[in-house]
Amino acid sequence: ALPLAVLAGPCQLESLDHALMIAERMARICDDAGLGYVFKASFDKANRTSLSGRRGVGMEAGLEILAAVRARIGCPVVTDVHLPDQCAPAAEAVDMLQIPAFLCRQTDLLIAAGRTGRAVNVKKGQFLAPWDMPNVAAKIAATGNENILLCERGTSFGYNTLVTDMRALPQMAATGYPVVFDATHSVQQPGGLGGASGGQREFAPVLARAAVAVGVAAVFVETHENPDAAPSDGPNMIPLARMPELIADLAAFDRMAKERPIPRP
Amino acid sequence: ALPLAVLAGPCQLESLDHALMIAERMARICDDAGLGYVFKASFDKANRTSLSGRRGVGMEAGLEILAAVRARIGCPVVTDVHLPDQCAPAAEAVDMLQIPAFLCRQTDLLIAAGRTGRAVNVKKGQFLAPWDMPNVAAKIAATGNENILLCERGTSFGYNTLVTDMRALPQMAATGYPVVFDATHSVQQPGGLGGASGGQREFAPVLARAAVAVGVAAVFVETHENPDAAPSDGPNMIPLARMPELIADLAAFDRMAKERPIPRP
Amino acid sequence: ALPLAVLAGPCQLESLDHALMIAERMARICDDAGLGYVFKASFDKANRTSLSGRRGVGMEAGLEILAAVRARIGCPVVTDVHLPDQCAPAAEAVDMLQIPAFLCRQTDLLIAAGRTGRAVNVKKGQFLAPWDMPNVAAKIAATGNENILLCERGTSFGYNTLVTDMRALPQMAATGYPVVFDATHSVQQPGGLGGASGGQREFAPVLARAAVAVGVAAVFVETHENPDAAPSDGPNMIPLARMPELIADLAAFDRMAKERPIPRP
Amino acid sequence: ALPLAVLAGPCQLESLDHALMIAERMARICDDAGLGYVFKASFDKANRTSLSGRRGVGMEAGLEILAAVRARIGCPVVTDVHLPDQCAPAAEAVDMLQIPAFLCRQTDLLIAAGRTGRAVNVKKGQFLAPWDMPNVAAKIAATGNENILLCERGTSFGYNTLVTDMRALPQMAATGYPVVFDATHSVQQPGGLGGASGGQREFAPVLARAAVAVGVAAVFVETHENPDAAPSDGPNMIPLARMPELIADLAAFDRMAKERPIPRP
Repeated sequence: ALPLAVLAGPCQLESLDHALMIAERMARICDDAGLGYVFKASFDKANRTSLSGRRGVGMEAGLEILAAVRARIGCPVVTDVHLPDQCAPAAEAVDMLQIPAFLCRQTDLLIAAGRTGRAVNVKKGQFLAPWDMPNVAAKIAATGNENILLCERGTSFGYNTLVTDMRALPQMAATGYPVVFDATHSVQQPGGLGGASGGQREFAPVLARAAVAVGVAAVFVETHENPDAAPSDGPNMIPLARMPELIADLAAFDRMAKERPIPRP
Repeated sequence: ALPLAVLAGPCQLESLDHALMIAERMARICDDAGLGYVFKASFDKANRTSLSGRRGVGMEAGLEILAAVRARIGCPVVTDVHLPDQCAPAAEAVDMLQIPAFLCRQTDLLIAAGRTGRAVNVKKGQFLAPWDMPNVAAKIAATGNENILLCERGTSFGYNTLVTDMRALPQMAATGYPVVFDATHSVQQPGGLGGASGGQREFAPVLARAAVAVGVAAVFVETHENPDAAPSDGPNMIPLARMPELIADLAAFDRMAKERPIPRP
Repeated sequence: ALPLAVLAGPCQLESLDHALMIAERMARICDDAGLGYVFKASFDKANRTSLSGRRGVGMEAGLEILAAVRARIGCPVVTDVHLPDQCAPAAEAVDMLQIPAFLCRQTDLLIAAGRTGRAVNVKKGQFLAPWDMPNVAAKIAATGNENILLCERGTSFGYNTLVTDMRALPQMAATGYPVVFDATHSVQQPGGLGGASGGQREFAPVLARAAVAVGVAAVFVETHENPDAAPSDGPNMIPLARMPELIADLAAFDRMAKERPIPRP
Repeated sequence: ALPLAVLAGPCQLESLDHALMIAERMARICDDAGLGYVFKASFDKANRTSLSGRRGVGMEAGLEILAAVRARIGCPVVTDVHLPDQCAPAAEAVDMLQIPAFLCRQTDLLIAAGRTGRAVNVKKGQFLAPWDMPNVAAKIAATGNENILLCERGTSFGYNTLVTDMRALPQMAATGYPVVFDATHSVQQPGGLGGASGGQREFAPVLARAAVAVGVAAVFVETHENPDAAPSDGPNMIPLARMPELIADLAAFDRMAKERPIPRP
């Protein structure tokens, strides 16, 4: 199996300089750890908890930044799409399209993303079981695009709480598609701050290590040089300064996990 | 308080004749029971469990049918919208737009629906708490449209299962917006049939009676003359022939509930 | 079907005078509403959240008080048992033994309770499905005692939260045993106050009305003249002064529910 | 930190020969892997799903077997207790008493176990949050016995399903007490077979590896030479023949986890 890939970046695009700073830093951190790197950021936060949450720079400006990051840093880039119409333009700027969890059942969006030929990372809805994901992947695969990744990002568990069921990782891997573990959204507390989502940043390294030990193709981690000042998802993002230690930790567990298949009882 | 309104119809539009047959029948049943009636049907099932599930007649044909039902039967009509662009044309044909549960956090869709000036019925996401809904309603209200309804349709409870928390009804009513109880989706078993959702039709009258006794403005019930042959949601729809008894039952409990406020301890 | 029975009293016994005061008051309230009444109180709270929670008067003193209430007020009495050895002595003082939810799978306790010949009210564990209860009832019935009641008191839903699934009522009634709805423990927030359980007293009348509308044999309600000063379960108990209104409300819905079977779709 | 300890054995005692065979085998497997070993078996299954489930050899015969295993194999022994009276006699035969999950709030049982001075392993109830466990531990610690272990064994997640929240491991470790992960009960499907619990044996090594990677003091694994013929818990037990591979896997991840503290973000 390939070494772990890391999809990381700020939750939302702020400026070209900011994106380049984070991409450059993360690319070096992942390279040092022998891991692949994909820059991630959103041009639009289309489903903020409340209307007053900041939406982002918009599609046009955002795709320009993403294309520039790709060109200057030389790393692949992923961004999320929310409407079928966004897929084709986004696919010109980025290498991978991401389907948000709430939208993972929207057939037209999945098909539009599949038709671009780009890799498609689908987040499993908080309301779905792992065994519901083959139906989701099949909507994309019907376009002839088999470049699909399935991403675990937590499951509804009571109100304002997510839980990560590690059984989902091998269950989704049984589809044959690579599995991504989203370490920072898995520790979100949806709506937990009233007008915004809370989060438990301190558990992201715990869940990430557990998932990597079980075995995944990639981890997804949002990061920011100052999470508490970030326009979204601050409570669950990892400070950029803490990423070298986290990535090194995951690299170590990834090597051991990939040398050792899970024992079959 | 006004008597209960009933939002009812087939899950998806099949043909004009079929829609008229159901609307005419349901209008009479509700009228006999002293209740208001709104015809409901979808022109597109945009988030079927699997790609092989039937999608529907499409927006153009669907809106024509809905407009015809409204004109010929004289009842208000509600349909669901999935993309911001659909709101304006749909608003010309129908009286109420409905936001699907998975999409209840998509800001642009909520705003586009609000801007039409039509009533907007938002289904609470299976992944949300009742107290998360004021943020959802505020996105619509920000357009100046306060004609908002909040709809309970079940909450994720483990895998492939929904549970109805009756506390959500007074909690959502505390917003001041009318509350709708969706009796047939609340008994869905999402993904429960592998390539389609299962359902427990037998519990729809149980939950509907409980919700009406607690006190709601409206119930939402999908119905079909032959649910097992319906193109979607068959396992949870109520046979049309059983609707007179169900509606009469709910009318009786609605009258008592509206005479008696819930005792405050 | 018989009119609703009401199992009500303070969470734990405080003194004979206190028990008599509540029993007398509740007996009159239920009689005025045309409902049966059973006095309920515990002699020991064997599973308090924390060690500092008050345990109660103990078995010997408690059973004396319960026997005195039964003799002087003339109403049947129910109390909960925690160990097999407690069943026989408790059965001499009371008419009905209650099995706590956490203990509903303890075979020896169920058998010891069954062997007394007294009615046995088993609370469904927060960790059980409704369809798990026939196995529980069968342990009691194996003693030859079919005088069994099954009680819904909420199901684990995330952390520190319970949810009431109203489908459980007809599912448990399908056993043929009478079903009880525990309105005050169903709104408990287990461990929600750190060293004690919290509660949402305001929702007890909501859930009680919903359950009675669906149709139950009995409701269970803890009450106290001053809940905030009660030694346990204060946050979810109903003030005694509010009971006449609550009981009258439930009596009205019970009459209608028992005249109207749930419509079968 | 000490290397991982393994608490392992059959779900219930069958005979002295059987217990010795498993203890001898497991002691060697753990020794080969450099891990500590504690023999585990139950003398009574006091809370079987149904009355027809086999209960076990009983306390007297069971304690004799356990004492013999301890004497002949030279390994420490753990067994579970269900009633306060069982604690003192059990403490003479074994080194560690285990409190079943359903009983983890029963104050008298916790105190009786604490008073024996033996180590006490308390399973976290399926209905509890990790942060509820300090109250549980405090009941034991109040006896002056601080030799306490806290054990994660899954949390209720919908009906007939458990989920393991890996965040619970560091949350419980924050108490300062060693944390045990029960790998085989965590994959139980309570009541999932109607008259018995089902299980997903194939996920026990997945969850065990994840927990060990996060960092625990011990794992608990039930094993049997022929699980499908075992008198209880067959569906989730690990075949004895597969234990060397599983234990070696866990030893490898344990070494790496104990060299590397979880990165703090």
